[in-house]
Amino acid sequence: MPHSPDELRALVEEELHHLKLSPDLHGQAESAHYGLVGVGGKRVRPVISLAVGEALGAPVEQVMPAALAIELVHNFSLIHDDLPALDNDEERRGKPSVWAVYGEGTAVLAGDALLAEAFRLACRYASSDVARELSEATLGMIGGQYLDTMVPDADLVVVHRLKTGCLFFASVALPLWAVAVPPDEQAPWRAFGKEVGLLFQIVDDILDDDGYVNVHGPDGARRLADEAADNARARLADVIADTTVLREIVDDLAVRAA
Amino acid sequence: MPHSPDELRALVEEELHHLKLSPDLHGQAESAHYGLVGVGGKRVRPVISLAVGEALGAPVEQVMPAALAIELVHNFSLIHDDLPALDNDEERRGKPSVWAVYGEGTAVLAGDALLAEAFRLACRYASSDVARELSEATLGMIGGQYLDTMVPDADLVVVHRLKTGCLFFASVALPLWAVAVPPDEQAPWRAFGKEVGLLFQIVDDILDDDGYVNVHGPDGARRLADEAADNARARLADVIADTTVLREIVDDLAVRAA
Repeated sequence: MPHSPDELRALVEEELHHLKLSPDLHGQAESAHYGLVGVGGKRVRPVISLAVGEALGAPVEQVMPAALAIELVHNFSLIHDDLPALDNDEERRGKPSVWAVYGEGTAVLAGDALLAEAFRLACRYASSDVARELSEATLGMIGGQYLDTMVPDADLVVVHRLKTGCLFFASVALPLWAVAVPPDEQAPWRAFGKEVGLLFQIVDDILDDDGYVNVHGPDGARRLADEAADNARARLADVIADTTVLREIVDDLAVRAA
Repeated sequence: MPHSPDELRALVEEELHHLKLSPDLHGQAESAHYGLVGVGGKRVRPVISLAVGEALGAPVEQVMPAALAIELVHNFSLIHDDLPALDNDEERRGKPSVWAVYGEGTAVLAGDALLAEAFRLACRYASSDVARELSEATLGMIGGQYLDTMVPDADLVVVHRLKTGCLFFASVALPLWAVAVPPDEQAPWRAFGKEVGLLFQIVDDILDDDGYVNVHGPDGARRLADEAADNARARLADVIADTTVLREIVDDLAVRAA
């Protein structure tokens, strides 16, 4: 029996809590750890990765380093986004953001540390495929953050595809490499990866009352979210695997309230 | 005939100028490129990497991605170090630092982009060995930067070993993986890598009149630099390869005036 989404989330949380950061970080590790587990998170991306791995018949342990690497890249990006020079957020999930606790300089280094640790995790695999795909997703995410914060008239669809979409796409693509799915069999999975990021972002905008809601109105955004969920389910149906748990994740993402 | 250090430096500079950053970075690529080639640099680390590769009989192209990756990590660290929240340097090599030109937010993202690009380069190799060793060196460097800027009474030897030493060590270690030197034959090279970073740092302190000079006085620091150079030459003598060019690099590092 594959794990439920909640069980996968608990496994990820457990691994994050006990993740051994490099001893070379010395005191810098404290702020990185705070950004990673002190602030908390929904762990949506690594749960998707583990569910893709289980759908492919791989044990959780085989995909875990890739799943954690994605969550570390996500948390690196939040730590830097929260900085005064970017989004200037003193809080994240009702807790003080990393720079608010440790100061800006240490927060810059905490983000850097999590990004480097993410690649160290991605390099636990003998092949560089996992780390390469992660580097490409990270670059897209950084480009999206740049457009979002520095370019007032940037195209919302492009911003979302990069800032949110790239890492969701990676959460589907990385386990394919971790499980050694041949490149010519990856296309249906990758098509699913594109849809799931869009779904997450539109629902995010509905919850935050911005982005897609500003452009399409609340009803229009809801319609787009339902379309994205339908597309994600259709892409899953193209995949030759037991995608029951992934289907459940998509259903949850479509109606989530937080 | 292997290339001279100056020839290797010219090859590195040429590659850096034409390095294709991810198109997903959009406008963010401009500041990253400025930090990489606009500000310039001595390119000591990638030159060492290419010289190690040639000593091992490998063509320059085989080691170039690893060499460039190290230079990108170095430049990422300078961009973040220069930020107001860290060293607060408005200038670097007589030119405005990245944040002074593009603002703090864009500079944070420029450093992030170079770090991610560094791993993309390191992942041009099929094996994850190059990228893994780079991630470990990067974590050490970040720990060193933390100790240097945030911990007033940190041990100078530890700070230098991490902040400068790790990346010099990697400039010797990465080409070993790029050329597929078996792990059990790497020890003499790695011993050399440790000495060359120390040599660079002591001479740096002599030129900047700080660090080792504060602790050991100008004559004491000079003596330590000469010792480090002797040790580096001795370690090179243990290596079974034509290390003429590396010997020249060590000689230059020992007497450099900039």
